[in-house]
Amino acid sequence: MLKLYLAGPEVFLPNARAVLDAKAALTRTYGFEPICPGDLAIEPAPTRHQFGLNISAVDEGFMNQADGVIANLTPFRGIAADPGTVFELGYMCASGKLVAAYTNMIETHYARTVDFYSGKVAVAADGHKRGPDGLSLEDFDMIENLMLHGGVERRGGPVVAHKAAAEALYTDLTGFEACLRALSERQGKAA
Amino acid sequence: MLKLYLAGPEVFLPNARAVLDAKAALTRTYGFEPICPGDLAIEPAPTRHQFGLNISAVDEGFMNQADGVIANLTPFRGIAADPGTVFELGYMCASGKLVAAYTNMIETHYARTVDFYSGKVAVAADGHKRGPDGLSLEDFDMIENLMLHGGVERRGGPVVAHKAAAEALYTDLTGFEACLRALSERQGKAA
Repeated sequence: MLKLYLAGPEVFLPNARAVLDAKAALTRTYGFEPICPGDLAIEPAPTRHQFGLNISAVDEGFMNQADGVIANLTPFRGIAADPGTVFELGYMCASGKLVAAYTNMIETHYARTVDFYSGKVAVAADGHKRGPDGLSLEDFDMIENLMLHGGVERRGGPVVAHKAAAEALYTDLTGFEACLRALSERQGKAA
Repeated sequence: MLKLYLAGPEVFLPNARAVLDAKAALTRTYGFEPICPGDLAIEPAPTRHQFGLNISAVDEGFMNQADGVIANLTPFRGIAADPGTVFELGYMCASGKLVAAYTNMIETHYARTVDFYSGKVAVAADGHKRGPDGLSLEDFDMIENLMLHGGVERRGGPVVAHKAAAEALYTDLTGFEACLRALSERQGKAA
Protein backbone atom coordinates (compact mmCIF):
# COMPACT_ATOMS: atom_id res chain seq x y z
CA MET A 1 0.00 0.00 0.00
CA LEU A 2 1.42 3.40 -0.98
CA LYS A 3 2.28 5.73 1.88
CA LEU A 4 1.34 9.41 1.72
CA TYR A 5 2.95 12.09 3.90
CA LEU A 6 0.28 14.60 4.95
CA ALA A 7 2.07 17.96 4.94
CA GLY A 8 0.35 21.10 6.18
CA PRO A 9 0.00 23.65 8.94
CA GLU A 10 -2.52 21.49 10.84
CA VAL A 11 0.18 20.74 13.43
CA PHE A 12 -0.25 24.32 14.70
CA LEU A 13 -4.02 24.02 15.32
CA PRO A 14 -5.46 23.78 18.84
CA ASN A 15 -7.15 20.54 17.70
CA ALA A 16 -4.16 19.33 15.69
CA ARG A 17 -4.47 15.68 16.70
CA ALA A 18 -8.16 15.49 15.77
CA VAL A 19 -7.63 17.13 12.37
CA LEU A 20 -4.62 14.94 11.56
CA ASP A 21 -6.59 11.87 12.63
CA ALA A 22 -9.45 12.87 10.32
CA LYS A 23 -7.03 13.33 7.42
CA ALA A 24 -5.42 9.97 8.19
CA ALA A 25 -8.80 8.18 8.28
CA LEU A 26 -9.85 9.74 4.95
CA THR A 27 -6.50 8.76 3.42
CA ARG A 28 -7.13 5.11 4.34
CA THR A 29 -10.56 5.12 2.68
CA TYR A 30 -8.78 5.86 -0.61
CA GLY A 31 -6.42 2.93 -0.19
CA PHE A 32 -3.34 4.80 0.97
CA GLU A 33 -1.41 4.56 4.23
CA PRO A 34 -1.16 7.98 5.91
CA ILE A 35 2.03 9.31 7.51
CA CYS A 36 1.36 12.39 9.65
CA PRO A 37 4.13 14.85 10.61
CA GLY A 38 5.70 13.72 13.87
CA ASP A 39 5.65 17.15 15.53
CA LEU A 40 3.07 16.12 18.13
CA ALA A 41 5.02 13.17 19.55
CA ILE A 42 8.68 14.20 19.87
CA GLU A 43 10.77 13.18 22.89
CA PRO A 44 11.95 16.03 25.17
CA ALA A 45 15.40 17.51 24.35
CA PRO A 46 17.95 19.47 26.46
CA THR A 47 17.30 22.74 24.57
CA ARG A 48 14.45 24.19 22.53
CA HIS A 49 16.83 24.43 19.60
CA GLN A 50 17.69 20.73 19.80
CA PHE A 51 13.99 19.93 20.09
CA GLY A 52 13.41 21.76 16.81
CA LEU A 53 16.28 19.88 15.15
CA ASN A 54 14.80 16.60 16.37
CA ILE A 55 11.41 17.38 14.79
CA SER A 56 13.21 18.19 11.54
CA ALA A 57 14.98 14.81 11.65
CA VAL A 58 11.79 12.88 12.43
CA ASP A 59 9.76 14.58 9.70
CA GLU A 60 12.47 14.12 7.08
CA GLY A 61 12.63 10.46 8.07
CA PHE A 62 8.87 10.17 7.62
CA MET A 63 9.11 11.79 4.19
CA ASN A 64 11.84 9.36 3.21
CA GLN A 65 9.51 6.47 4.14
CA ALA A 66 6.62 7.92 2.12
CA ASP A 67 5.80 7.30 -1.53
CA GLY A 68 4.12 10.67 -1.96
CA VAL A 69 2.90 13.87 -0.36
CA ILE A 70 -0.32 15.86 -0.22
CA ALA A 71 0.65 19.44 0.69
CA ASN A 72 -1.86 21.86 2.20
CA LEU A 73 -0.76 25.19 0.70
CA THR A 74 -3.56 27.29 2.24
CA PRO A 75 -2.07 30.72 3.07
CA PHE A 76 -0.75 30.80 6.62
CA ARG A 77 0.01 33.96 8.64
CA GLY A 78 0.13 36.05 5.48
CA ILE A 79 -0.33 35.60 1.75
CA ALA A 80 1.85 32.50 1.35
CA ALA A 81 1.76 28.85 2.38
CA ASP A 82 3.37 27.60 5.60
CA PRO A 83 7.16 27.53 4.94
CA GLY A 84 7.57 24.11 6.57
CA THR A 85 5.01 22.64 4.17
CA VAL A 86 6.66 24.39 1.21
CA PHE A 87 10.05 22.93 2.19
CA GLU A 88 8.45 19.49 2.37
CA LEU A 89 6.83 19.85 -1.05
CA GLY A 90 10.21 20.78 -2.58
CA TYR A 91 11.80 17.86 -0.75
CA MET A 92 9.27 15.38 -2.14
CA CYS A 93 9.46 16.80 -5.68
CA ALA A 94 13.24 16.28 -5.65
CA SER A 95 12.77 12.78 -4.24
CA GLY A 96 10.73 11.74 -7.29
CA LYS A 97 7.70 10.89 -5.16
CA LEU A 98 3.98 11.36 -6.00
CA VAL A 99 3.02 14.98 -5.33
CA ALA A 100 -0.33 16.71 -4.83
CA ALA A 101 -1.28 20.12 -3.46
CA TYR A 102 -4.42 21.90 -2.37
CA THR A 103 -5.43 25.25 -0.93
CA ASN A 104 -8.59 26.29 0.88
CA MET A 105 -8.60 29.74 -0.77
CA ILE A 106 -9.48 30.27 -4.43
CA GLU A 107 -7.68 33.59 -4.91
CA THR A 108 -4.59 33.18 -7.10
CA HIS A 109 -1.07 33.93 -5.90
CA TYR A 110 -1.24 37.09 -8.03
CA ALA A 111 -4.56 38.27 -6.53
CA ARG A 112 -3.26 37.74 -2.98
CA THR A 113 -0.10 39.69 -3.77
CA VAL A 114 -2.13 42.57 -5.24
CA ASP A 115 -4.15 42.53 -1.99
CA PHE A 116 -0.89 42.63 -0.02
CA TYR A 117 -0.11 45.89 -1.83
CA SER A 118 -3.71 47.15 -1.32
CA GLY A 119 -4.12 47.16 -5.10
CA LYS A 120 -1.20 49.54 -5.66
CA VAL A 121 0.38 47.54 -8.46
CA ALA A 122 1.48 49.13 -11.74
CA VAL A 123 3.32 48.11 -14.89
CA ALA A 124 6.88 49.45 -14.67
CA ALA A 125 9.10 50.68 -17.50
CA ASP A 126 10.57 47.16 -17.86
CA GLY A 127 7.10 45.70 -18.51
CA HIS A 128 6.86 43.95 -15.13
CA LYS A 129 3.96 44.48 -12.72
CA ARG A 130 5.50 45.92 -9.56
CA GLY A 131 4.37 46.97 -6.10
CA PRO A 132 5.22 50.33 -4.51
CA ASP A 133 8.39 48.69 -3.11
CA GLY A 134 9.58 47.94 -6.65
CA LEU A 135 9.27 44.16 -6.26
CA SER A 136 7.72 42.39 -9.26
CA LEU A 137 4.65 40.16 -9.04
CA GLU A 138 4.21 36.72 -10.61
CA ASP A 139 1.00 36.61 -12.66
CA PHE A 140 0.84 33.04 -13.95
CA ASP A 141 -2.70 31.86 -13.03
CA MET A 142 -1.26 29.77 -10.21
CA ILE A 143 -2.29 29.17 -6.60
CA GLU A 144 1.23 29.84 -5.31
CA ASN A 145 4.75 30.78 -6.41
CA LEU A 146 5.54 29.05 -9.71
CA MET A 147 8.11 26.66 -8.21
CA LEU A 148 5.37 25.14 -5.99
CA HIS A 149 2.44 25.10 -8.41
CA GLY A 150 4.72 24.26 -11.35
CA GLY A 151 6.59 21.58 -9.42
CA VAL A 152 3.34 19.70 -8.77
CA GLU A 153 1.64 20.30 -12.14
CA ARG A 154 4.72 19.40 -14.18
CA ARG A 155 4.81 16.05 -12.35
CA GLY A 156 1.19 15.36 -13.26
CA GLY A 157 -0.03 15.92 -9.72
CA PRO A 158 -3.35 17.57 -8.86
CA VAL A 159 -3.39 21.23 -7.78
CA VAL A 160 -6.76 21.86 -6.14
CA ALA A 161 -8.25 25.20 -5.05
CA HIS A 162 -11.42 25.11 -2.94
CA LYS A 163 -13.17 27.97 -1.17
CA ALA A 164 -13.54 26.98 2.47
CA ALA A 165 -15.58 28.92 5.03
CA ALA A 166 -13.37 31.28 7.04
CA GLU A 167 -13.85 29.29 10.24
CA ALA A 168 -12.87 26.06 8.45
CA LEU A 169 -9.84 27.47 6.63
CA TYR A 170 -7.49 24.82 8.02
CA THR A 171 -9.97 22.05 8.69
CA ASP A 172 -12.10 21.80 5.52
CA LEU A 173 -10.98 18.57 3.82
CA THR A 174 -12.75 19.01 0.45
CA GLY A 175 -9.56 19.93 -1.42
CA PHE A 176 -7.60 17.31 0.47
CA GLU A 177 -10.10 14.64 -0.57
CA ALA A 178 -9.96 15.81 -4.19
CA CYS A 179 -6.20 15.19 -4.08
CA LEU A 180 -6.74 11.71 -2.64
CA ARG A 181 -9.28 10.95 -5.39
CA ALA A 182 -6.90 12.15 -8.12
CA LEU A 183 -3.96 10.15 -6.75
CA SER A 184 -6.17 7.09 -6.37
CA GLU A 185 -7.40 7.33 -9.99
CA ARG A 186 -3.83 7.78 -11.17
CA GLN A 187 -2.74 4.67 -9.30
CA GLY A 188 -5.72 2.78 -10.73
CA LYS A 189 -4.59 3.67 -14.25
CA ALA A 190 -0.99 2.76 -13.47
CA ALA A 191 -2.01 -0.64 -12.05
CA MET B 1 34.75 23.45 -9.72
CA LEU B 2 31.64 23.05 -7.55
CA LYS B 3 28.50 24.78 -8.81
CA LEU B 4 26.26 26.71 -6.41
CA TYR B 5 22.63 27.61 -7.16
CA LEU B 6 21.92 31.10 -5.82
CA ALA B 7 18.33 30.90 -4.54
CA GLY B 8 16.54 34.00 -3.31
CA PRO B 9 13.94 36.67 -4.00
CA GLU B 10 16.46 38.86 -5.88
CA VAL B 11 14.71 37.92 -9.15
CA PHE B 12 11.84 40.20 -8.08
CA LEU B 13 14.02 43.31 -7.59
CA PRO B 14 13.94 46.23 -10.05
CA ASN B 15 17.73 45.77 -10.38
CA ALA B 16 17.58 41.95 -10.36
CA ARG B 17 20.24 41.45 -13.03
CA ALA B 18 22.76 43.71 -11.28
CA VAL B 19 22.24 42.04 -7.88
CA LEU B 20 22.45 38.53 -9.34
CA ASP B 21 25.60 39.52 -11.24
CA ALA B 22 27.16 40.83 -8.01
CA LYS B 23 26.29 37.56 -6.23
CA ALA B 24 27.73 35.56 -9.14
CA ALA B 25 30.98 37.55 -9.13
CA LEU B 26 31.39 37.12 -5.36
CA THR B 27 30.71 33.39 -5.71
CA ARG B 28 33.58 33.06 -8.21
CA THR B 29 36.02 34.79 -5.84
CA TYR B 30 35.45 31.91 -3.39
CA GLY B 31 36.23 29.30 -6.02
CA PHE B 32 32.68 28.23 -6.87
CA GLU B 33 30.78 28.44 -10.15
CA PRO B 34 27.51 30.37 -9.72
CA ILE B 35 24.19 29.27 -11.22
CA CYS B 36 21.57 32.02 -11.04
CA PRO B 37 17.82 31.30 -11.32
CA GLY B 38 16.81 31.46 -14.97
CA ASP B 39 13.71 33.60 -14.40
CA LEU B 40 15.17 36.60 -16.23
CA ALA B 41 15.88 34.84 -19.53
CA ILE B 42 12.91 32.58 -20.32
CA GLU B 43 11.59 32.23 -23.90
CA PRO B 44 8.04 33.55 -24.51
CA ALA B 45 5.18 31.01 -24.10
CA PRO B 46 1.61 30.88 -25.47
CA THR B 47 0.04 31.53 -22.04
CA ARG B 48 1.16 33.14 -18.78
CA HIS B 49 0.53 29.80 -17.07
CA GLN B 50 2.82 27.95 -19.49
CA PHE B 51 5.43 30.66 -19.03
CA GLY B 52 5.36 29.98 -15.29
CA LEU B 53 5.68 26.23 -15.87
CA ASN B 54 8.66 26.85 -18.14
CA ILE B 55 10.46 28.87 -15.45
CA SER B 56 9.80 26.03 -13.01
CA ALA B 57 11.35 23.53 -15.45
CA VAL B 58 14.40 25.71 -16.14
CA ASP B 59 15.09 26.40 -12.46
CA GLU B 60 14.70 22.74 -11.47
CA GLY B 61 17.10 21.87 -14.27
CA PHE B 62 19.60 24.39 -12.94
CA MET B 63 19.27 22.94 -9.44
CA ASN B 64 19.88 19.46 -10.81
CA GLN B 65 23.14 20.72 -12.40
CA ALA B 66 24.26 22.36 -9.14
CA ASP B 67 26.32 20.82 -6.35
CA GLY B 68 24.83 23.04 -3.68
CA VAL B 69 22.59 25.98 -2.84
CA ILE B 70 22.85 29.21 -0.90
CA ALA B 71 19.30 30.23 0.02
CA ASN B 72 18.42 33.83 0.88
CA LEU B 73 15.69 33.35 3.53
CA THR B 74 15.22 37.06 4.30
CA PRO B 75 11.50 37.59 5.05
CA PHE B 76 9.61 38.51 1.90
CA ARG B 77 6.16 40.16 1.79
CA GLY B 78 5.45 39.12 5.37
CA ILE B 79 7.19 37.29 8.18
CA ALA B 80 8.43 34.30 6.17
CA ALA B 81 10.97 33.62 3.42
CA ASP B 82 10.02 33.70 -0.27
CA PRO B 83 8.12 30.41 -0.95
CA GLY B 84 10.00 29.76 -4.20
CA THR B 85 13.31 29.91 -2.33
CA VAL B 86 11.93 27.67 0.44
CA PHE B 87 10.82 25.08 -2.15
CA GLU B 88 14.30 25.18 -3.66
CA LEU B 89 15.98 24.71 -0.28
CA GLY B 90 13.83 21.63 0.40
CA TYR B 91 14.60 20.36 -3.10
CA MET B 92 18.35 20.68 -2.58
CA CYS B 93 18.23 19.13 0.91
CA ALA B 94 16.47 16.08 -0.54
CA SER B 95 19.00 15.94 -3.38
CA GLY B 96 21.87 15.50 -0.94
CA LYS B 97 23.59 18.67 -2.13
CA LEU B 98 25.62 21.22 -0.11
CA VAL B 99 23.18 23.59 1.62
CA ALA B 100 23.61 27.04 3.17
CA ALA B 101 21.14 29.71 4.23
CA TYR B 102 21.22 33.33 5.30
CA THR B 103 18.82 36.07 6.27
CA ASN B 104 19.26 39.82 6.35
CA MET B 105 17.14 40.17 9.52
CA ILE B 106 18.35 39.07 12.94
CA GLU B 107 14.93 38.59 14.56
CA THR B 108 14.14 34.92 15.13
CA HIS B 109 11.20 33.14 13.52
CA TYR B 110 9.53 33.23 16.95
CA ALA B 111 10.07 36.99 17.41
CA ARG B 112 8.66 37.73 13.96
CA THR B 113 5.61 35.58 14.66
CA VAL B 114 5.01 37.36 17.98
CA ASP B 115 5.21 40.64 16.03
CA PHE B 116 2.68 39.25 13.54
CA TYR B 117 0.30 38.83 16.48
CA SER B 118 1.22 42.31 17.85
CA GLY B 119 2.60 40.59 20.94
CA LYS B 120 -0.71 38.91 21.78
CA VAL B 121 0.76 35.47 22.42
CA ALA B 122 -0.09 33.44 25.52
CA VAL B 123 0.62 29.99 26.89
CA ALA B 124 -2.50 27.87 26.37
CA ALA B 125 -3.84 25.07 28.57
CA ASP B 126 -1.88 22.51 26.51
CA GLY B 127 1.42 24.29 27.30
CA HIS B 128 1.87 25.67 23.78
CA LYS B 129 2.37 29.36 23.05
CA ARG B 130 -0.57 30.40 20.88
CA GLY B 131 -1.77 33.50 19.05
CA PRO B 132 -5.33 34.90 19.35
CA ASP B 133 -6.30 32.64 16.41
CA GLY B 134 -5.32 29.56 18.43
CA LEU B 135 -2.37 28.65 16.18
CA SER B 136 0.77 27.59 18.04
CA LEU B 137 4.15 29.27 17.62
CA GLU B 138 7.50 27.54 17.12
CA ASP B 139 10.03 28.85 19.65
CA PHE B 140 13.24 27.03 18.78
CA ASP B 141 15.87 29.81 18.49
CA MET B 142 15.80 29.49 14.73
CA ILE B 143 15.75 32.00 11.89
CA GLU B 144 12.85 30.23 10.16
CA ASN B 145 10.47 27.29 10.46
CA LEU B 146 12.33 24.29 11.88
CA MET B 147 12.23 22.30 8.64
CA LEU B 148 14.27 25.04 6.90
CA HIS B 149 16.71 25.96 9.66
CA GLY B 150 16.95 22.34 10.82
CA GLY B 151 17.36 21.01 7.30
CA VAL B 152 20.44 23.17 6.77
CA GLU B 153 21.98 22.88 10.26
CA ARG B 154 21.53 19.09 10.45
CA ARG B 155 23.49 18.82 7.16
CA GLY B 156 26.36 20.88 8.61
CA GLY B 157 25.54 23.91 6.51
CA PRO B 158 25.91 27.49 7.74
CA VAL B 159 22.80 29.39 8.87
CA VAL B 160 23.74 33.07 8.96
CA ALA B 161 21.70 35.99 10.34
CA HIS B 162 22.94 39.50 9.59
CA LYS B 163 21.20 42.80 10.28
CA ALA B 164 21.07 44.71 6.99
CA ALA B 165 19.98 48.33 6.65
CA ALA B 166 16.30 48.58 5.66
CA GLU B 167 17.13 49.97 2.24
CA ALA B 168 19.58 47.11 1.61
CA LEU B 169 17.34 44.31 2.86
CA TYR B 170 17.58 42.32 -0.37
CA THR B 171 20.93 43.59 -1.65
CA ASP B 172 23.29 43.41 1.37
CA LEU B 173 25.63 40.49 0.63
CA THR B 174 27.32 40.19 4.05
CA GLY B 175 25.37 37.07 5.05
CA PHE B 176 25.69 35.66 1.55
CA GLU B 177 29.47 36.08 1.69
CA ALA B 178 29.60 34.43 5.13
CA CYS B 179 27.88 31.39 3.56
CA LEU B 180 30.42 31.35 0.72
CA ARG B 181 33.28 31.54 3.24
CA ALA B 182 31.84 28.67 5.31
CA LEU B 183 31.28 26.46 2.27
CA SER B 184 34.76 27.27 1.00
CA GLU B 185 36.38 26.35 4.34
CA ARG B 186 34.36 23.14 4.41
CA GLN B 187 35.56 22.22 0.93
CA GLY B 188 39.14 23.06 1.95
CA LYS B 189 38.90 20.60 4.85
CA ALA B 190 37.31 17.97 2.63
CA ALA B 191 40.09 18.30 0.02
